Amino acid sequence: MKDISTINSRIYIDNSATTRVSDGAVKAMLPYFTEEFGNPSAIYSYGQDAKIAIDKARHTIAKAIGAMPTEIFFTSGGTESDNWAIHSVAEQKSKAGKHIISTAIEHNAVLKTLKKLEWLGFNVTLLTPDSKGQISPKDLEAAIRPDTILVSIMFANNVMGTILDIQTLAQIAHKHGVLFHTDAVQAAGHIPINVRKLDVDLLSLSGHKFHGPKGVGAIFAKIPRLPLPLITGGGQERGGRSGTENVPGIVGMAHALQECIESQKENSVYLRSLRDRLIEEFLKLEGAYLTGDPIARLPGHASFVFEGIKHSALLINKLNEVGICASSGSACSATSQEASHVLMAMGYSQEMALNSFRVSFSRYNTMQELPFIIEKTKLYIQELRNLKKLQVLY
Amino acid sequence: MKDISTINSRIYIDNSATTRVSDGAVKAMLPYFTEEFGNPSAIYSYGQDAKIAIDKARHTIAKAIGAMPTEIFFTSGGTESDNWAIHSVAEQKSKAGKHIISTAIEHNAVLKTLKKLEWLGFNVTLLTPDSKGQISPKDLEAAIRPDTILVSIMFANNVMGTILDIQTLAQIAHKHGVLFHTDAVQAAGHIPINVRKLDVDLLSLSGHKFHGPKGVGAIFAKIPRLPLPLITGGGQERGGRSGTENVPGIVGMAHALQECIESQKENSVYLRSLRDRLIEEFLKLEGAYLTGDPIARLPGHASFVFEGIKHSALLINKLNEVGICASSGSACSATSQEASHVLMAMGYSQEMALNSFRVSFSRYNTMQELPFIIEKTKLYIQELRNLKKLQVLY
Repeated sequence: MKDISTINSRIYIDNSATTRVSDGAVKAMLPYFTEEFGNPSAIYSYGQDAKIAIDKARHTIAKAIGAMPTEIFFTSGGTESDNWAIHSVAEQKSKAGKHIISTAIEHNAVLKTLKKLEWLGFNVTLLTPDSKGQISPKDLEAAIRPDTILVSIMFANNVMGTILDIQTLAQIAHKHGVLFHTDAVQAAGHIPINVRKLDVDLLSLSGHKFHGPKGVGAIFAKIPRLPLPLITGGGQERGGRSGTENVPGIVGMAHALQECIESQKENSVYLRSLRDRLIEEFLKLEGAYLTGDPIARLPGHASFVFEGIKHSALLINKLNEVGICASSGSACSATSQEASHVLMAMGYSQEMALNSFRVSFSRYNTMQELPFIIEKTKLYIQELRNLKKLQVLY
Repeated sequence: MKDISTINSRIYIDNSATTRVSDGAVKAMLPYFTEEFGNPSAIYSYGQDAKIAIDKARHTIAKAIGAMPTEIFFTSGGTESDNWAIHSVAEQKSKAGKHIISTAIEHNAVLKTLKKLEWLGFNVTLLTPDSKGQISPKDLEAAIRPDTILVSIMFANNVMGTILDIQTLAQIAHKHGVLFHTDAVQAAGHIPINVRKLDVDLLSLSGHKFHGPKGVGAIFAKIPRLPLPLITGGGQERGGRSGTENVPGIVGMAHALQECIESQKENSVYLRSLRDRLIEEFLKLEGAYLTGDPIARLPGHASFVFEGIKHSALLINKLNEVGICASSGSACSATSQEASHVLMAMGYSQEMALNSFRVSFSRYNTMQELPFIIEKTKLYIQELRNLKKLQVLY
């Protein structure tokens, strides 16, 4: 059993922010740094070996999400994938219309990109979720206009773990002839994805969210839709995305996704047991609320707001001191220490949104870590509440 | 001594296409995959450790090119850097003018991006080089118009190894109040770069061209010019480039560049000796010509056209069969097997441009490899010429 009583033993429970790269993925990557380092565009066999490795990775990723290899394009990560998907449709369809529908709970990779498009003359409607973080199909249908060219709705939310009903939402978009993109960065590897069943046109994923490396991602683009390039140059990725391919990154990402798919069922059961145990314990606390959907949520994802702790950054800092790495909700805006736009969109007051707390488990977490996490979190919540009461008194 | 007589011993002489990652760089990267894998945006110390690693890398890269750390932004590679630099200026300055000057010998990362801007209403002037691949300062000055907003000229050419006089060219642009970008992807690590002395406003570099990993690059943007983002989202890189930072890639790139800088002088002497020996031998052949500048050229770069070999792909394939990895000139367009746009711009006929051949050495090449390279190349050139003569006879 891991020694969890010392400060040196780190307990990492922020797997929605990023994950440890699996040993298998690292092992798969290593030869491509120093041995098989050829440029995939070169015509000698040594470069072609690198190309074969990329194509093999493309097959693996395609298979993992029910796509065809020709529908997979490699990028530098989820953010680029989201940017590319949205800009590509905006550029291709701008003559047909300039209205895009998305949601108020998207990651900034989508929201800021839409903001940029607004400056360029596009109109954006952001749908508001219900109390569980679900987007109503009726709301989506009501928002569709004759000039709507794209609906972009995330598969699973990073802040509160809600899994959205993408199949139904995509169906509504298609009923009106509108393209559908989903940011599946939090979903890929963790829950089953089949792009044919979902019938989405574009889907983004990111390697480092499922134990692959940082700096690599992919986009699924349904045939015959070859996305217009965001990054132009040598014409790699069949002209879709230029730049020498990140061969080790691509190989590592594919390996990591394959591992996740192979053990998805058992991992899911295991992560749910960790998650549900934690939720049960935390909800025993007064003034503690689960955010997001209690049922349709990511297997390892537990998110809360705790009344009276002033700012969850204080809680996270205290936990950090005993080696626990947790988060307020979104890594990408964590440093700004602002209230989550997702929770505000859900109707939480700014004060409550500032008290958000997220635990996201991976298969590297152990059941033995739970008591320590629970004990310390409860203790520090109590301390922060007492402190707040004292501050009010004096 | 390496056994160079067997097919299994690979001789890699295409280091302008991509390079082997140094053992030091791999070693520096490794902890960031499985140990220090935290998200740099997280507020717990574990994430902050990753942030410190990035900042350290930023200092290293800044120091290597005479910049300040705040002037360095990380990207997914040289192509993204070029795209970002050009789009950023185009967007920021489009009200002042829509004319951009570049050269006909740029990499496609620049040329295709300018092509895209032309579709968007910009005007592009491409300067033609002289017989050595140099751009005349007078030609540049003559091309500058009142609506010129950017000059983008590469530091060193990938096809023919010519090092351009960036300092003089930047001076002319600045004399007329025009911003100057240089694609230094082939130069960085291999020849001294000081952005202050050169007085460039924007400079692109790529990790995998100097024994760092693929999938990571950087841009220098002179203060106070914070480039407008190409990729939007979580606001990493001070809002300039969103997406979870590729921590291992960034660390590996910085380590590799540092290694190059430390041994630049001795490497340069060594690579020049390899290069000059090869050039001397090849030029003994009838109908063999060096392309590019014989003096101002990259230390490890030797490029030629050979008359009468029909298509250099045939030569490259034959060399491949004995384990020699060489190139026709540009990896990124090698598969297309078209004549290099660079050589065509230099005034070579299409037939001659199709006979281009590039050898680019790195510090991993040995003097012992030279006789084998020379012997086999000469042999196959002769074979191809005989074959061509036969085809003419019958």
